[in-house]
Amino acid sequence: MAEQKIEDPEREDEDYALDAALVGEILEAVEEGDAARLESLTEPLHAADIADLLEQIGPNERRDLLQIWPRGIDGEVLSEIDESIREEVIEYLPREILTEAVRELESDDVVDLIQDLEEPQQEIILEALEEGDRAAVEQSLTYPEYSAGRLMQREVVTAPEHWTVGEAIDSLRTADWLPEQFYHVVLVDPRQHPVGHATLGKILASRRDMALKDILEDSFRTFHVLQEEGDVAYAFNQYHLISAPVVDDDDRLVGVITIDDAMNVLDEEHEEDVLRLAGVGEESSISDGVRETVRQRTPWLLINLLTANLSAFVISQFSGTIQSLVALAALMPIVASMGGNAGTQSLAVAVRALATRNLTRSNAGRVVRREAMVGAINGFLFAVIMGAVGWGVYGLPLLGLVIAIAMVVNLIVAALAGTLIPLALDWFDLDPALASGTFVTTMTDVVGFFAFLGLATVILL
Amino acid sequence: MAEQKIEDPEREDEDYALDAALVGEILEAVEEGDAARLESLTEPLHAADIADLLEQIGPNERRDLLQIWPRGIDGEVLSEIDESIREEVIEYLPREILTEAVRELESDDVVDLIQDLEEPQQEIILEALEEGDRAAVEQSLTYPEYSAGRLMQREVVTAPEHWTVGEAIDSLRTADWLPEQFYHVVLVDPRQHPVGHATLGKILASRRDMALKDILEDSFRTFHVLQEEGDVAYAFNQYHLISAPVVDDDDRLVGVITIDDAMNVLDEEHEEDVLRLAGVGEESSISDGVRETVRQRTPWLLINLLTANLSAFVISQFSGTIQSLVALAALMPIVASMGGNAGTQSLAVAVRALATRNLTRSNAGRVVRREAMVGAINGFLFAVIMGAVGWGVYGLPLLGLVIAIAMVVNLIVAALAGTLIPLALDWFDLDPALASGTFVTTMTDVVGFFAFLGLATVILL
Repeated sequence: MAEQKIEDPEREDEDYALDAALVGEILEAVEEGDAARLESLTEPLHAADIADLLEQIGPNERRDLLQIWPRGIDGEVLSEIDESIREEVIEYLPREILTEAVRELESDDVVDLIQDLEEPQQEIILEALEEGDRAAVEQSLTYPEYSAGRLMQREVVTAPEHWTVGEAIDSLRTADWLPEQFYHVVLVDPRQHPVGHATLGKILASRRDMALKDILEDSFRTFHVLQEEGDVAYAFNQYHLISAPVVDDDDRLVGVITIDDAMNVLDEEHEEDVLRLAGVGEESSISDGVRETVRQRTPWLLINLLTANLSAFVISQFSGTIQSLVALAALMPIVASMGGNAGTQSLAVAVRALATRNLTRSNAGRVVRREAMVGAINGFLFAVIMGAVGWGVYGLPLLGLVIAIAMVVNLIVAALAGTLIPLALDWFDLDPALASGTFVTTMTDVVGFFAFLGLATVILL
Repeated sequence: MAEQKIEDPEREDEDYALDAALVGEILEAVEEGDAARLESLTEPLHAADIADLLEQIGPNERRDLLQIWPRGIDGEVLSEIDESIREEVIEYLPREILTEAVRELESDDVVDLIQDLEEPQQEIILEALEEGDRAAVEQSLTYPEYSAGRLMQREVVTAPEHWTVGEAIDSLRTADWLPEQFYHVVLVDPRQHPVGHATLGKILASRRDMALKDILEDSFRTFHVLQEEGDVAYAFNQYHLISAPVVDDDDRLVGVITIDDAMNVLDEEHEEDVLRLAGVGEESSISDGVRETVRQRTPWLLINLLTANLSAFVISQFSGTIQSLVALAALMPIVASMGGNAGTQSLAVAVRALATRNLTRSNAGRVVRREAMVGAINGFLFAVIMGAVGWGVYGLPLLGLVIAIAMVVNLIVAALAGTLIPLALDWFDLDPALASGTFVTTMTDVVGFFAFLGLATVILL
């Protein structure tokens, strides 16, 4: 207790980042090739933290660490390692250590580990498994990627629907094997259809002669084995589920999904949204090397280059106008930039609302109208400000008018583009976050430059 | 079963969005003032879906629905209602229905409901509670916002450390009251210090004479009552926790946090990131009215206007240069836009890596170097392309050179700004997502225009 108390003042600031001093010591030990010191330094770390450590250090340090101390990678660490360095780590591990690590894992963790690996590495890991486990993993891999079937674990704690609490407890006490974590006993009928489930809490708190079917949860839901994992994760969050059975086409029980898997999916989907909105490949990671990073980002920059050239083309059509009033060149990026910003705002709100199922067919019309209204109001507001600047600073009231009108036009277009583009992508079953940032700013740039310079040509010249 | 089978073909596409036809019927019933039809239409809906419905319909429809059918709002629905419309809904509810709804809730749900309300509404709800519950809620409200103390529920299932499985089961069977959901029995010493916990699964599967302390979980962790909820949520995700005790300064047990609360926090933090990166107040929602939306977005647009004027000022310094070669006006937004895009890419990766504790003091140097390297490589790549365009399209090799150099400079600056700005914000304990998008694009705009036009002045004139 005393020791814990000393730490107390710091506890409320605990943010679970790896301690920089510890990482420094670990890297020192790697440099010295001191396996014993590595073992003792990493001993207090959780497997997830060891995996993070591997992700955060440089590629050479990673290679050295794995060569000096391969036994540090047990099954749990292996299953926590980020996709981006998984192949690399597996490559460096001696075959017998890999085999041992893989055999420690439950079938759903092996599936998760194996599914993004290249064929030869998949083979190595499948061969490391025992016969029965291998069959289970291969069966899971037949379900499509990102499906409930890939996410579920196959081991489910079930009871016949007519059982009592006492019968369930007795059967659990004599079971050969139970999952690491389970939260419900699923009641099944003779044809293996799940008919409901009881929480372990209710079972523990009920008399032995209570029928299980009298203590079932109202919130019971099942998932189809082919449902998208993103929809499953949404349902877990929306309906506060802890675990839920997975069924096949005939409604027969084939597995169970637990909340920690759902939380993981939710986290990955969010990562995807943030990265896709910014035009970065969704698989980029802090541990990627320079070459990998360039490979991920260049295509998006190339798209941006093409769209930027479109804007340049629009501007070049008005070079006569700019020539006669060079102040236009300084002011035109303001209109474009305000449009880009307003469009990005609408976009983020729409993408998020689509992800939370709060923007639907029923209210899309109202939301689009609201956004257009907000765009118009902000447009007028900033039109007044910038109109005054145009007039005041440049002494040209008509220049003020041009900026003002262009601002209103562009902010309305921005609001519409920021909402309609993700809605359209969603309509076609594409990820609304995908590349929509580029589409929206292209739209606002082109419209902004065209409206501003076009109006200037008509009104000022 | 038959009924379920008919639905099967659609099940894998189930995405849990409210059905548009159903929403249409509900709005029809609202228009007709038909409370009975409203009751039967919403009967199959989960409380979370009814709350979503209220959020998604328009403000007038919301008012009408609540007036026609206030009994639809029970405690569960109330606790699911989004912050953005909570005050509005509470205002429309008759006092007796509000009282009934609030009394159904557990103390942590009341705290969650009440904490963002204005004083008078808080009073109304506190008065609706029974004496004991009111004291518990008031106690929780003494903890700071976003702390573990606000997140936890105060009701914990505990057992003395010397108990056996049988004693624990007997005590659960005779308990007057147990929490809706619980996953562990927490062992406490005589001074109420939590010393470990056992999963209900292990308890159920063990013999009655097994000592609880022999089946404790390795993964046991406690949280301090003042820890930030974001750090708690991170730890739940990182260490696969299901529930964890909360302790005070003396390490005494004061409550428990469960994974569904953590999942909720994680979801809110992600929402904040997406919205803040896009320069939208993090509390914006699809149900906000036009006025509220304008109020949230305008300050950010105003900041953008100021920074855009900074760029305009930079450009205006070079009006002589533009006058003598108007092609510069068309090409300059390309350099700025590429910088903005590349900076946003670096920014998204850095913000996300900070959120997942993968960008830390130990590897910040390496990540900054990598980003700078990627910026330089992409800079050279696009320098070659745009240099060729400048030369080819405009027939001016020196113009190509100017674009090329400006591109390299701006993409390196973009990479550095996109990484260093969020790192700096984090260093000062600010949210790295906050406004960093605006900082980064201001930087790349100003540098882009300055480098391009400055070089043009030196090299071309």
